[in-house]
Amino acid sequence: MSETTATHKVPVSVLGLGNLGRALAETFLREGHPTTVWNRSAGRADGLVARGASLAATPADAVAAGELVVVAVLDYDTVRELLLPAAGELKGRTVVNLTTGTPSAARALGAWVADQRASYLDGAVYAVPQTIGTSAAFVLYSGDEAAFGTYRTVLDAIGEGSLVGPAAELSSVYDTALLSGMYGMFAGFFQAVALAGTAGIGAAELTGPLVRWLTAAADALPAFAREIDDREYGTTTSNLEINAVGLRNILAATEAQGLPTDLLAPLLRLFDDQVRAGHAASSLSRAVESLRADTGRL
Amino acid sequence: MSETTATHKVPVSVLGLGNLGRALAETFLREGHPTTVWNRSAGRADGLVARGASLAATPADAVAAGELVVVAVLDYDTVRELLLPAAGELKGRTVVNLTTGTPSAARALGAWVADQRASYLDGAVYAVPQTIGTSAAFVLYSGDEAAFGTYRTVLDAIGEGSLVGPAAELSSVYDTALLSGMYGMFAGFFQAVALAGTAGIGAAELTGPLVRWLTAAADALPAFAREIDDREYGTTTSNLEINAVGLRNILAATEAQGLPTDLLAPLLRLFDDQVRAGHAASSLSRAVESLRADTGRL
Repeated sequence: MSETTATHKVPVSVLGLGNLGRALAETFLREGHPTTVWNRSAGRADGLVARGASLAATPADAVAAGELVVVAVLDYDTVRELLLPAAGELKGRTVVNLTTGTPSAARALGAWVADQRASYLDGAVYAVPQTIGTSAAFVLYSGDEAAFGTYRTVLDAIGEGSLVGPAAELSSVYDTALLSGMYGMFAGFFQAVALAGTAGIGAAELTGPLVRWLTAAADALPAFAREIDDREYGTTTSNLEINAVGLRNILAATEAQGLPTDLLAPLLRLFDDQVRAGHAASSLSRAVESLRADTGRL
Repeated sequence: MSETTATHKVPVSVLGLGNLGRALAETFLREGHPTTVWNRSAGRADGLVARGASLAATPADAVAAGELVVVAVLDYDTVRELLLPAAGELKGRTVVNLTTGTPSAARALGAWVADQRASYLDGAVYAVPQTIGTSAAFVLYSGDEAAFGTYRTVLDAIGEGSLVGPAAELSSVYDTALLSGMYGMFAGFFQAVALAGTAGIGAAELTGPLVRWLTAAADALPAFAREIDDREYGTTTSNLEINAVGLRNILAATEAQGLPTDLLAPLLRLFDDQVRAGHAASSLSRAVESLRADTGRL
């Protein structure tokens, strides 16, 4: 066990030197941690070795060299393929898996790592590779609380970390949800740019006020979230009916410009379903109930 | 013509006392401008009259009382209905129309107001009624540049104003585009909340990291916009192929949780179209070209 302080150095191993893995290894080296790296194509490690990293010959050697073993590879099949031959070395170590995958894959891997008497943290980094190790990056972990407490300071060099819960799969659920949110925003951006373009407005011209408005509109989301958790949607001036009228007008204007409407038309159906069910005056946030209606649960 | 300074007081009339109109009139009164109001149901003016507003008996009286005439009603048909009988009073005044409508309706109204030898500004307020007159609000105007210059300081009390261009309809185009962007973000939020809910994660729990991530992801939009304007999509690590794989996985996970995927599936089609056209390694921003392909123009 480590008593981790800002100056405490921990042997760290990084398996997988894609863009994320290399950025991680660079961050650990910069923080002065003894850093061992492994990659299927060893050439990816050259720059890191020049900066002081040790190159492990095998994944098992890399695991053996690290107290903290960080894995960032293509998928969970690859994670298992690398860790299985290293099973005998895992005991007492902490595996931090930053590979993207499904909740069920995370749950299964977490259970297997625990069977090896090692600690497991599943994590997702919210940053582009260039911003890892800067204050713009953050990381959501789930899994072993004691391990998170022990290595929190070391891990915070990647980006500010939070533990979202003890179940290994939670990080993966958050990841899927946060990326869904991001893709929704990107869909709206593409639609906005295409629409403005039909009137000769450039994308850069539009994007200044658009980002300002998105930032302001994001301020509404915490209040929406409270309404959704309480299932108390009140009555409000910006209600479902007003928004259904507004969005219908936007889709008509979009169609009039010869652009497809299918990026936003499904949202109007969520609004309309709630209006038809008698909730015209309810908060817009009630639209989420239309999604739930399809599954009978949230 | 007015020489407008921070202390210069301008007779202002507000036609229409819905949530927006009342907030506008309150702001003008607070700034010390002689304020005249008119509403179809005069009772809506009571609170404003108690604070010093003059109540006009007819729209024409309201127009006659104001140097700056601000209109915020339900739709453009209502604007025309109110202003037609006031045509003889319009000469030399500035009409600021904050009513929501289509670009063609704005263009037609702007031309008619100019025919009356009055100045026309079309505008859209980006705020909820509660934040009008605070630094969170901003307003995009289009139309008469001289009028904007003259009344800019008076109008800034509503929210920081910008003139996006001289054509009356531009404000309406921006409005449709900015609201499209907002609805895309909201669609992503609803999808994210529904997905997290299937794993027992509350909406409020999710929304903290979600808003943080949306804010970070919005930082990517100006770079996307430059690529789109230049039609130079380069090659990048977060390219169309990687994002198509990622979004396909998210939709699979969404379906596995019994949730509909139609809010985000149309975005995947934009990505896939570009990958199929040979642009797998291009920036994600190239997805907008899939929208353009449907119209042959941007």
